[in-house]
Amino acid sequence: MIFKSIIDKIKDSNKIAVLSHVMPDGDSIGSSLALYNALKKCGKDVRFILDDDIPRKYGFLKSSGEIQRPGQFESFDAVIVLDCGDTERLGNSSIYLNNNYVINIDHHMSNNKYGDLNMVNKDSAAAGELVYDLIKELDIVMDREISECLYTAIVTDTGQFQYSNTTSRTHLIIGDLINNGVNVSLMSERIYQNNSKEKTVLMNMALSSLEFFHNDVTSCISLTLEQMKEANASDEDSDGIINLARDIECVEVAIFLREVEPGVVKVGLRSKKKADVSAVAVLFGGGGHLHAAGCTLPGTVDEVKKKILDAVAEELNRGEL
Amino acid sequence: MIFKSIIDKIKDSNKIAVLSHVMPDGDSIGSSLALYNALKKCGKDVRFILDDDIPRKYGFLKSSGEIQRPGQFESFDAVIVLDCGDTERLGNSSIYLNNNYVINIDHHMSNNKYGDLNMVNKDSAAAGELVYDLIKELDIVMDREISECLYTAIVTDTGQFQYSNTTSRTHLIIGDLINNGVNVSLMSERIYQNNSKEKTVLMNMALSSLEFFHNDVTSCISLTLEQMKEANASDEDSDGIINLARDIECVEVAIFLREVEPGVVKVGLRSKKKADVSAVAVLFGGGGHLHAAGCTLPGTVDEVKKKILDAVAEELNRGEL
Repeated sequence: MIFKSIIDKIKDSNKIAVLSHVMPDGDSIGSSLALYNALKKCGKDVRFILDDDIPRKYGFLKSSGEIQRPGQFESFDAVIVLDCGDTERLGNSSIYLNNNYVINIDHHMSNNKYGDLNMVNKDSAAAGELVYDLIKELDIVMDREISECLYTAIVTDTGQFQYSNTTSRTHLIIGDLINNGVNVSLMSERIYQNNSKEKTVLMNMALSSLEFFHNDVTSCISLTLEQMKEANASDEDSDGIINLARDIECVEVAIFLREVEPGVVKVGLRSKKKADVSAVAVLFGGGGHLHAAGCTLPGTVDEVKKKILDAVAEELNRGEL
Repeated sequence: MIFKSIIDKIKDSNKIAVLSHVMPDGDSIGSSLALYNALKKCGKDVRFILDDDIPRKYGFLKSSGEIQRPGQFESFDAVIVLDCGDTERLGNSSIYLNNNYVINIDHHMSNNKYGDLNMVNKDSAAAGELVYDLIKELDIVMDREISECLYTAIVTDTGQFQYSNTTSRTHLIIGDLINNGVNVSLMSERIYQNNSKEKTVLMNMALSSLEFFHNDVTSCISLTLEQMKEANASDEDSDGIINLARDIECVEVAIFLREVEPGVVKVGLRSKKKADVSAVAVLFGGGGHLHAAGCTLPGTVDEVKKKILDAVAEELNRGEL
């Protein structure tokens, strides 16, 4: 029902804005550009409005150079918001929500249904899967460029098809996108084989700090502000570094401590099986999921490490994990 | 035709041996165990005979504890060889080929068709895809355990669905395996989130040696025999280390130098786009593919590095890459 209403509304609209969240990721970029390209292809007057820059590695996607910054309020026949659980995450782009007809398309369980039409499916691995359905139903030919956008959305939000959100249907969709001409090894090279030199330096620094605790069940790595500066690294460069500490066979809980300001440490937590790292993060005002969580604490790296290790030990003992 | 003959031969056989190559990988183990479990399930007297141990990380696969070592010659109604391009790669297990009826099932282009029946399909991403077809055609119910074996075969031989051998059909098969109960995040944890501690130490040592050449187009990492010893690491622990040098955005060619004996250096080479690293390896008596090759040279790490860097420079200049 909702799906059909959305299709009808898009068909009836000419001037359309596509919005997505700040700090864009592969799914927000990929799903938005797929829809933008598809709507443009069928003659709509469409804009893709985004607060932040598209990360450089997604620069190969078609129309990635055509994003617009949010400016003054403007009327649209429809504003389509993708991959965005609440309107705060839109940043300045939220200016286009009031007095426009809003279609909210998302896969986050926490989505608070802020749209006039809401298509929220938590069983979809990525917003890209929902946009795939829309483009199919709108009967727009899914060319290679659109398929590359959707592939990017899905491969990144499923962690290369390894996260638990990956379904049988995810693979059916990817199979179809490959039939449309997506070159998977080229996509992999563009998306995954392109760490910055700075990130590689951080990886080395982080590995040098690796320590084990609780009979090797807990691993911990850290980076100081000084090291971040020495490596000339940005926050983005530290993404994924925690996996180095997690992907060790004996490890159940991995901790990544990163000094973000003098006396302020951001803590990343990962677990593999039963340890609930969100329970640890919540103790310090943070949050997350069973296997991935985070919080921010005052103190030196060593002080924060001690607090977090104690809390992790409690969590490990709780379940006798 | 061949496919039907193989199905008929398997149906007519009771005592069956499944063989695969030395230094087993995810595809040889996964495809062999899938077929072994399937044939056992329909009442055949089947053995899985293998020269080497199953890598520990595949120990969760059903029947992984039931492999047999090659011994004296024995008669079988059929000997099925999986994922093996030539009989030399069978090691001592090749003893079962003479005077037995041999079914050769493989996806390597170089396969020299040594079987009485040869099902060699270079378009299959993994031997696991061919075994999937066989089990389907044999009408054996593909339970979760068999599906996990096939998933392991395919996910590893496609590099998590990122290599160019990954096809639309690969994803259709994986979708089916998920429907059979495969838990992809659990599989990922078992197969990919379990580096040894020793490997993690090697990663740190290798990253500390990282250097760039040819305007940052070439990266080079190295490990000495002494470092391998210091890290208490095995050859297997160095698998995949070269990706640390390859996965940097500016890099086209990555070099990994590993001293394997005093005065002997094993060289791994990777490229992303047009540089042909097999052409470099061939200069020194090695071989490989466009994007992955290797060779072994006498000399110190520094001496070998110089030779390889010169040859890589030539290759980069050749194509004005």
